[in-house]
This record gives sequence, C-alpha cells and structure tokens, in this order.
Amino acid sequence: MSETTEWNARPTPLALMIRTLDEPGALHALTRVILDHRANITYVDIAERREDDSTIYFELEDIASGAAADTLIDDLKVLPIVREVERAPSFAKVYGKRIIVIGGGAQVGQVVVGAVAEADRHNIRGERISVDTIPLIGEENLAGAVRAVARLPRAVGLVLAGALMGGEVALAVREVREKGIIVLSLNMPGSVTDAADLVVSDPVQAGVMAVMAVSASAHFDIRRQRGRRY
Amino acid sequence: MSETTEWNARPTPLALMIRTLDEPGALHALTRVILDHRANITYVDIAERREDDSTIYFELEDIASGAAADTLIDDLKVLPIVREVERAPSFAKVYGKRIIVIGGGAQVGQVVVGAVAEADRHNIRGERISVDTIPLIGEENLAGAVRAVARLPRAVGLVLAGALMGGEVALAVREVREKGIIVLSLNMPGSVTDAADLVVSDPVQAGVMAVMAVSASAHFDIRRQRGRRY
Repeated sequence: MSETTEWNARPTPLALMIRTLDEPGALHALTRVILDHRANITYVDIAERREDDSTIYFELEDIASGAAADTLIDDLKVLPIVREVERAPSFAKVYGKRIIVIGGGAQVGQVVVGAVAEADRHNIRGERISVDTIPLIGEENLAGAVRAVARLPRAVGLVLAGALMGGEVALAVREVREKGIIVLSLNMPGSVTDAADLVVSDPVQAGVMAVMAVSASAHFDIRRQRGRRY
Repeated sequence: MSETTEWNARPTPLALMIRTLDEPGALHALTRVILDHRANITYVDIAERREDDSTIYFELEDIASGAAADTLIDDLKVLPIVREVERAPSFAKVYGKRIIVIGGGAQVGQVVVGAVAEADRHNIRGERISVDTIPLIGEENLAGAVRAVARLPRAVGLVLAGALMGGEVALAVREVREKGIIVLSLNMPGSVTDAADLVVSDPVQAGVMAVMAVSASAHFDIRRQRGRRY
C-alpha cells in the first residue's frame, strides 16, 4: 500500500486561520511572508468571506520547529491587512483520508453503509477515514466526477456504485488510477469493471473493502487483489 | 433559505489547473499575475506533487469576460516556473453543496441512505448536492469535526447522527450555526438537540430533510422549522 504509507508519512502540517481585510492583494501579501520563512504551502482555502474581511485557511509544511512557527505567526500579524491569526487542527487530523463513492442513489447508499461501519472501527483505533459521496446520472457527469477525485484533497480511494458504467467513465478511472487513487467497482455491465483495481458484487462489502484497502492498520493489500472479482 | 440562495447566486468561477516547478515561490509568483488581473481567488489547492513539479488548482472570481480569462491564462503561461495551464470544471460545478454527517457508524450509515436517495432526486434535476461523512467517537473529536465543518469548502449543512452528544459538541454546533451552517440532529440524550436547528428521530428522514433544507428547488424552509422535533 505505497500510496497510503506515503500519505501517512507526511508530517503534521501547521494549520492557520488568518483573518484579513477582504482585498485582492491579501493572499499575495500572505504568501510573501510564508515564502520568506521557506515554509511550503500544501493547502489554502478562503474559508469565510464577510462584508469587509476574509478568513484564509493555510496548511504549511517544512517549518523547522515550534519556535519557527511562532516567528512566522508574529510576522503575519504585523501585516497591515491581517486582523487575527489562529492555529487550527488540520483537515488531515480531523477528517483524514477520504474515500469517494459515486453512482446511483440506491447503490451509493448501500456502499456507504458498509464503508462507514468499517471506517468507524478504524477511527475508534485512532485512524481518520472519511467517506464522501455524490449520486449522479449520465456518462459525462460521472466521468467528470471521477476525474475530479484526483484533485480532491486527501482523496485516496474511489468506489463506483452503479448498474451501468463504461466509455468515458472507464477512461477516467484509468486516469485517476495512474494518479494513485485506488478504484473499486460494483459488478455491473460496461467496461468500468475492466478498468478498476477490484470488482465486488455486494455493495456493503465493496464499502468495507474500500476502507480496508486504504487503511494503515488493515491486513489487506490491494496489489494482491488487482483484477479480481468477488 | 438565505444561506443557500446566496451560495447559488455566486457566479461560476474560472477553474484552472496549473502545473509548475515545485519550488517555494511558485504560489507567490502565480498570485502576483492573478492580482495584476484583479481576479479574486476563492479557492487554491496543491492538487498533486510529483518529484519535480506541482499542480496547483485555482478557482477565480471577478473575471470580466472570456477574453479576460484567456489573457490571464496567457500571462500565467509566460512565467518561467509554469509548465502547463488547463481549464477544469470547478468543484462547485462537479460536486456542488456538501452536507456533512458526523457520529456513530450505525447511525451515520442510515442518515446517508436517506440523504443520498434524496440528493439523487435533486441532482437528476440539475442540482449538485454531495453527502460526506465521518464516523467518530468522543466529545473532543466530535466537537473538532463539527467546528471544522465551518471551514470545509462548500459545506452548507450538518447532521449529527449519534446517541449521546452534549457539552463541547453543543457549543461547537452553536458556533457553526452562527457561520451559516444548517444543523440537524437525531433525537438523542444530551444538550445537542437544544443547539440544533431541527431534531428528527428517524435517521433516514433526517438525511432526507437535510437535503431538502439546503436544496434550491425544495419547498422546505428551515426558518419555519427551527426548534421543532419530529
């Protein structure tokens, strides 16, 4: 499970909520200070926008020490546009890895029942695994959602929960697999079953296996299951 | 449903995937160009990091026209650190609004069955509603996950799916409601039911109602349901 161990090996980032005046140069001014400190920005989001201020959420890596973090925070606070800087727990710490379930409502629901029950058992032991879903119809919509999984933060696995998927969806599956996403598919008509890492007929079991495949603690190696059908 | 109509009224952002050399100043250099074009950055994420390059995903607003977007893209391509600029569908277009379900595995699973089935019906008519989950245990973990919902991109609703929640969790619920998140709770012991917008005993119905509450097309006004229990 090279994908997941790599993911786990990354250090806990410094997560900051920075409230600034809502003006176009705000982010640019903040990245200047972060760059001066040689910190690596791994995530940025405009978390909140109000009438005259914005809250920008950063996750930063490569910060040498707690003291270096304190100096960085002090330097950010000195900027005229900055109103407040707060530390926050990172999304990785709160929500962890994400499995995405895409397909028809009836089947997505059953996959999630399995995945959430299994994730519960892992999270109780200290892991963090989230299960996220979108019910969708249509080849183009499905292919778009599959491709977007590769750029969703912390997404590591995908389950295709439908009764007919092929064409563009199968192409999209091959693309996201190349980017390190593990893909499980329900057994169904269409070429998507040939494109996935693993095919599982029962939706509840597919959800359980998806969590086992991305978990750091389960004795389940997706490499030994590639191409199999259950 | 002022929260949701405001959210819907926002224009479709320009979404760009920019592949750059992986060096500390990359983001700062990109924001300089974006600032010069007076575009407003609403989302940034480091979508992919490989040995020597990174892919940075931006969502930008306040771009006057298609021609203005083309000029911005050309100016980005001129930067020595930039290898490739591609347009992408925005996360808002692909995954839409997000409802987050937090709690115990058994109950989270049932809430999602209801929410996904209802979201399916809305998405078929052209909306985009995702249902995301994390099974968790413990007051501190739950309160942290609830608070983090307010800074999750596109999150508009939260369902608390457990059998005992109070204390810090109830405080966190009040905080995220102030930031515009709609909160539904299963009926359960603990003060969280007093803190939520709406209490629903059946988990499947709670999931359905959460989707109705955030949908742009449903005739369901959460303001008229506040404080009620079903």
